[in-house]
Amino acid sequence: MIVGGDGYCGWASALHLSKLGYEVAIVDSLVRRLFDEQLGMYTLTPIASLQKRVKRWKEVSGKQLAVYIGDVCDFEFLEDAVRTFKPEAVVHFGEQRSAPYSMMDRNRAVFTQQNNVIGTMNIMFAIKEFLPECHLVKLGTMGEYGTPNIDIEEGFITITHNGRTDTLPYPKQASSFYHLSKVHDSHNIAFACKAWGMRATDLNQGVVYGVHTDETSLHEELINRLDYDAVFGTALNRFCVQAAVGHPLTIYGKGGQTRGYLDIRDTVRCIELAIANPAKLGEFRVFNQFTEQFSVNDLAKLVTRAGAKLGLEVKATNVPNPRVEAEEHYYNAKHTRLVELGLEPHLLSDALLDSLLNVAVQYADRVDMDQILPAVSWKKISSKPKTVVGTA
Amino acid sequence: MIVGGDGYCGWASALHLSKLGYEVAIVDSLVRRLFDEQLGMYTLTPIASLQKRVKRWKEVSGKQLAVYIGDVCDFEFLEDAVRTFKPEAVVHFGEQRSAPYSMMDRNRAVFTQQNNVIGTMNIMFAIKEFLPECHLVKLGTMGEYGTPNIDIEEGFITITHNGRTDTLPYPKQASSFYHLSKVHDSHNIAFACKAWGMRATDLNQGVVYGVHTDETSLHEELINRLDYDAVFGTALNRFCVQAAVGHPLTIYGKGGQTRGYLDIRDTVRCIELAIANPAKLGEFRVFNQFTEQFSVNDLAKLVTRAGAKLGLEVKATNVPNPRVEAEEHYYNAKHTRLVELGLEPHLLSDALLDSLLNVAVQYADRVDMDQILPAVSWKKISSKPKTVVGTA
Repeated sequence: MIVGGDGYCGWASALHLSKLGYEVAIVDSLVRRLFDEQLGMYTLTPIASLQKRVKRWKEVSGKQLAVYIGDVCDFEFLEDAVRTFKPEAVVHFGEQRSAPYSMMDRNRAVFTQQNNVIGTMNIMFAIKEFLPECHLVKLGTMGEYGTPNIDIEEGFITITHNGRTDTLPYPKQASSFYHLSKVHDSHNIAFACKAWGMRATDLNQGVVYGVHTDETSLHEELINRLDYDAVFGTALNRFCVQAAVGHPLTIYGKGGQTRGYLDIRDTVRCIELAIANPAKLGEFRVFNQFTEQFSVNDLAKLVTRAGAKLGLEVKATNVPNPRVEAEEHYYNAKHTRLVELGLEPHLLSDALLDSLLNVAVQYADRVDMDQILPAVSWKKISSKPKTVVGTA
Repeated sequence: MIVGGDGYCGWASALHLSKLGYEVAIVDSLVRRLFDEQLGMYTLTPIASLQKRVKRWKEVSGKQLAVYIGDVCDFEFLEDAVRTFKPEAVVHFGEQRSAPYSMMDRNRAVFTQQNNVIGTMNIMFAIKEFLPECHLVKLGTMGEYGTPNIDIEEGFITITHNGRTDTLPYPKQASSFYHLSKVHDSHNIAFACKAWGMRATDLNQGVVYGVHTDETSLHEELINRLDYDAVFGTALNRFCVQAAVGHPLTIYGKGGQTRGYLDIRDTVRCIELAIANPAKLGEFRVFNQFTEQFSVNDLAKLVTRAGAKLGLEVKATNVPNPRVEAEEHYYNAKHTRLVELGLEPHLLSDALLDSLLNVAVQYADRVDMDQILPAVSWKKISSKPKTVVGTA
């Protein structure tokens, strides 16, 4: 059961698992599509409706995806879906996943934490009550750790202090109401594993780039979404779109911000590995799900170089950082557990950049230049609702 | 501004600060009184209505308490209260504070996290927007730390790992949806201090015992609440009431569970010290607010000995532990920062036990024996609402 199975990572994961022979259900409220409409910001790639996508997948692959349209914050709906489908694993992508969205105004900050935390609690309760053997695979984020001045481990750290030693949850320093919601989820899930014997894997995912997977490439109606706007777009995807339309790459602040990144083809493989190798009953397991780390300046250089090969003249510009974050810092995060399970990373080679850049060039006429510059300030967030008004 | 100023710690703190000459406002939705009615569990001591209490305090002390009845989860209400009263400090006791209540059923688990986390977010937003210099004094709990096998520090720990060193938030291992809600609050508040320059003190309070303070003793209508039931009662208070009515002390499991404790007279003094010595703008400060640590078995022995002096024959019995927690563990928590600011602890001497036991004896005819045994199981919590039914 893929909660959030209509989204960027969820859709690609649903098809990948379906292709492998898993019986897959998509649970989604489709509220992400509502955000597009409300903010007037649309995916670069023209995505089909969920109903059309699922129908097309049946035609292309011969596989049926079950679909449950509803909100996991509505326990009655969730109970019905879980009792009907009886999943062996629930992969939970179904959260509001944009840091800038969570920092737009108080309403959206509160919505993000309420939606994410309560949705996850409901899934935990549904598993406990109806399917106690079911494996919860929860999408967390590398952003839960922040940027400590020591190496980042996978979920836990062994600390020797005043002559005694214990292995404890790695300290969390999240930097938006969105990232904080994932920290809250992680604590709640760890408790449920301990108190109830639930089994869970928390995937602290890095920044995902790319658009195509083997399955989404099979037909244009299966295409995945690609967000390049300042609210839902993430660094590398946004840079490729900027390069394609001749907009300078917008580096926030000094550009030394370093994070873990991974190809969406590795996201779907990580999900496959997590569910094929489930946590034990009572185990709360954390994997850092990324393959390479880059600074924003690194990414700008790579995109500039790859753009040149396609004949694009790419420039970069430093814009005031709308976020509150260290712009020069130590960063060294472990990410061995998924590799140990068999992950063979797609690396951010020129080939990939070409491919991502080519998609950006292909759909360049769909780019809305007004959506590229940062519009959400971490410091200016207010309790007043930020109303989106159309521009003439 | 004391949010939750009608509650056990809040009422005593409001009077203490008022007596000291602070202009004090109580903000409270009074929902704690509704829980009493819904669960059919009442305070041992006969508390007056908030309106009568406040009127009586005016007569006794000559001081006026401002009162704002409403829910801090309602931002419009909170905005009005904050803009009208313009507090220099907000002391936030206004959360659902019972671990067993949060473990009764899914509805109450969700209510606890939603109410506590969103209420605190609203207070953060109100301070940011209307009173950015205002000091947030937030009641956390020692339960945020759990029972690690290393010493517990005050909020932060310096870790040397692979040759590098950083001071990071102390790892959290909370063990109920209530305790988890306080962990979530701490992370959210730390972020607001960093991102917005807010000033905050997180008081990780231990288990509070006692009932009278200098101010609540001044008139019977000022008396504080004292909970002895299995949902809202805490260990030592419950033991004293059990001793007074001849009920065996109910030790959960092996009784080696060790926690920090403090006298309610120290709670009010700690609040005084925190607001008189505010955090700096942008500072997120954590104090461990307790004075001594005891195991449950220690408490049972102390109550038995003190009871004997009053002629009470006190027995203890081990009951199955309704919680999921270590019953034998290392525990050594630091608590020096409030002492450095001037706290002179009331220790759990026989004198205090006599006083607490005497109150229990005084009101023994109000004890409902049906409310004493544990009624909430950490493992049996269900998504079905736990309906309270009257017993014939």
